[in-house]
Amino acid sequence: MGTNLTMLTDLYQLTMAYGYWKNGMENHEAVFHLFFRKHPFKGQYTMVSGLEQAIQYLENLKFDLEDVRYLASLTGNDGLPLFDEGFLNYLQRFKFSCDVDAMPEGSIAFPHQPVVRVKGNLIQAQLIETALLNIINFSSLISTKAARIKSAAGEDTVLEFGLRRAQGPDGAMMASRAAYVGGCDATSNVLAGKTYGIPVKGTHAHSWVLCFDSEMQAFEAYAAAMPANSILLVDTYDTVEGVRKAVEIGNRLRQNGHRLGGVRLDSGDLAELSIAARRILDEGGFPDAAIVASNDLDEYRIKELKERGATIKVWGVGTRLATAYDQPALGGVYKLAAIRVRGEDWKFRVKLSEQAIKVSNPGVLNTFRMSRDGQPIGDVIYSEEGLASTTRFIPFRGIETPFSKNEGTDLLIPIFRKGNKIYDAPSLSETRRYGREQLALFQQLDNYPVGLESALHHTKIKIIEGFSTL
Amino acid sequence: MGTNLTMLTDLYQLTMAYGYWKNGMENHEAVFHLFFRKHPFKGQYTMVSGLEQAIQYLENLKFDLEDVRYLASLTGNDGLPLFDEGFLNYLQRFKFSCDVDAMPEGSIAFPHQPVVRVKGNLIQAQLIETALLNIINFSSLISTKAARIKSAAGEDTVLEFGLRRAQGPDGAMMASRAAYVGGCDATSNVLAGKTYGIPVKGTHAHSWVLCFDSEMQAFEAYAAAMPANSILLVDTYDTVEGVRKAVEIGNRLRQNGHRLGGVRLDSGDLAELSIAARRILDEGGFPDAAIVASNDLDEYRIKELKERGATIKVWGVGTRLATAYDQPALGGVYKLAAIRVRGEDWKFRVKLSEQAIKVSNPGVLNTFRMSRDGQPIGDVIYSEEGLASTTRFIPFRGIETPFSKNEGTDLLIPIFRKGNKIYDAPSLSETRRYGREQLALFQQLDNYPVGLESALHHTKIKIIEGFSTL
Repeated sequence: MGTNLTMLTDLYQLTMAYGYWKNGMENHEAVFHLFFRKHPFKGQYTMVSGLEQAIQYLENLKFDLEDVRYLASLTGNDGLPLFDEGFLNYLQRFKFSCDVDAMPEGSIAFPHQPVVRVKGNLIQAQLIETALLNIINFSSLISTKAARIKSAAGEDTVLEFGLRRAQGPDGAMMASRAAYVGGCDATSNVLAGKTYGIPVKGTHAHSWVLCFDSEMQAFEAYAAAMPANSILLVDTYDTVEGVRKAVEIGNRLRQNGHRLGGVRLDSGDLAELSIAARRILDEGGFPDAAIVASNDLDEYRIKELKERGATIKVWGVGTRLATAYDQPALGGVYKLAAIRVRGEDWKFRVKLSEQAIKVSNPGVLNTFRMSRDGQPIGDVIYSEEGLASTTRFIPFRGIETPFSKNEGTDLLIPIFRKGNKIYDAPSLSETRRYGREQLALFQQLDNYPVGLESALHHTKIKIIEGFSTL
Repeated sequence: MGTNLTMLTDLYQLTMAYGYWKNGMENHEAVFHLFFRKHPFKGQYTMVSGLEQAIQYLENLKFDLEDVRYLASLTGNDGLPLFDEGFLNYLQRFKFSCDVDAMPEGSIAFPHQPVVRVKGNLIQAQLIETALLNIINFSSLISTKAARIKSAAGEDTVLEFGLRRAQGPDGAMMASRAAYVGGCDATSNVLAGKTYGIPVKGTHAHSWVLCFDSEMQAFEAYAAAMPANSILLVDTYDTVEGVRKAVEIGNRLRQNGHRLGGVRLDSGDLAELSIAARRILDEGGFPDAAIVASNDLDEYRIKELKERGATIKVWGVGTRLATAYDQPALGGVYKLAAIRVRGEDWKFRVKLSEQAIKVSNPGVLNTFRMSRDGQPIGDVIYSEEGLASTTRFIPFRGIETPFSKNEGTDLLIPIFRKGNKIYDAPSLSETRRYGREQLALFQQLDNYPVGLESALHHTKIKIIEGFSTL
């Protein structure tokens, strides 16, 4: 991903920007919220991430001369330039000046809660919609998937192996990073290791074995080259025979003061084969040799294999993690919630829909996570501006309930003020720890109360009723 | 995607490289084939793409000082450096020297046919596995999806709108390019338009409408700013009312010498709403105004909507195209097929598996596409070296059949020789045309005969039998 992604936007962001500019609205201000409507994977939580990349994007926001030249070359249906020169000059002079608030990476978010809030110049706030969605949607999707997989694996190690099937080089890079945030222990992706400081792990491929005239020769050569780090892939010809050969190799390594790292299974019935491999390794005197497994794993497969008694201690998870195979996109959206002429009061806005879930919330929103003894007990979306605060809230699935800010925290924190970054991101390993801790705080995610502060709820209803009488 | 992706590889490629180097095999040569085993989307063809990005990757293949420093910092289980300094020096001096042959982008490929063939230095050929798979897998997946969508849309226009839900910035960039190769007519992604020369298209968002006090004001303002390019999004409040307002706007545009571009539907029953919208537009005197639709479209939805009489002429396809939602990864693999000490004869290799589909083919493979009067009649995988050619082939689902090279073509063409690029890629629009033409050549894809040249088939069987007696 290059450093300047300003042009990574939908054309309609630019045609709208042009429309605002042409209609003299270049000083209007708006509030947009980035949020999602449903947890991915039919799950009960979403772990958000991608903020660091979003910050990088916003810090580098600038149309360069080449960009403007390209935009000047675009024509409309009448063959004339799509954009006026005055507008292109405006774009070239443009400097990001919005306020941005966001949930830190690793936060646990629920539907409709603003994950990112952008407040300020309408044209700028609109323009950044596409890239913000692209980054936050994908990164959060993968962090959530990784958290689910790590939960299924319990105390075991989870390695992310998805690079070869990921959606492009950068899809892989973002996936490796987001998977680490979500709880993975290491990646096979060397560039991600170098770029983000994620631990890197790997064994060898079937092709290693095929390069030699026999499996035994191949194992001997591998152990000779990597005496301290021998995890042998045992399924090229016959898995059980492969494990027996690994024991022989282990004995030779031991004679030379080294130890067998373990074996990797990559095909067949992983539960049965791991049980057989464990017995052979234990009987061979290698109770500490690890059993690593890979082959289309995800949280469902890991759970099933564990239930069937698999003795796997290291799970190599690839395609199904790096592409979020069972739901490859998070449906995050970015909706206008308030608009004003600079200096005037906010006008709250609601996007209607026949589907109640698609009706957006108006205001300058934040979420307060109430807690008791440090444990979350309910999340309340409220407007920071334009509404009197109340002591009640309306859970989406319940009746009016007390709302107090005595104990708890706002989920959005300031990232940019007037276009200047005021936030120092923690290191990636701190972010990973934060995510694990946040997830562990929720004893029960099932019926966790999430809703709207009551003045906000009633204002929203009033706006919707206003439309129906238009 | 940066220019140097050398480190975009699985760690095990480097540990294997180290193993080969340690075992004195740094001058061994190998043949690897990149191929897939099943068409994606339960379909009957795969349109391959991504070669241009793969070439870029290979041309920039070089470990820089920073890379080597990072690799030097990696430690094994014993806390000692994972790699010897001699090996790191070797990596830093490394210059790509392999022969690469590949199917041109837009080619129609079938299972087991080499899409890319790499022949040459074992360590190099092994190292590039991961990035080649990453690039070709994803790009081909999306080109195939786009070709399927374009086929469902028939004569209609298909726009790719996937940026906001794509798997990262680069996932989006590759998807936009691959979708264009597969037959899409334009993209919303401005950076893809600028980078690849793909036509860009867009309308406006719901937020545009919400910025004004009424929908009518919003439409007036949009038409005033873009009189030659007004496609109005009509579903912010009530779709049918929105279309009626679009007709009013159309009348005013006409008075000023302009024309209404059309309307966009983004929710509700798109078949019913498009029929209603068409009637309103026709009765209002705008038979040429286009109906654009979006909202979770793919080839299945488009087919269904057309069957239900939808009058949509422009299909905006986003998430389901850019992430290949129903199958977000192509299972392409990269397998060793032959190995030799430099100067000696090739030793053919087969990767065994309990599943027949996973048993690889040995040799230095190419595919000959036989044709009659320019139309493909059968594809034969054969080895260019080490086997006498025969006049028979064994289709995967049939009995021995005549094989003649009288009319037809080899599917692999030379890309690199001794590490030097000798191939000039066509322009992207030529590639797109080539893909459409290739697909159109196949009158029937159902039982298209694909198989192995008979000497290759028998050699493979002999190698497999050899294992079972090991």
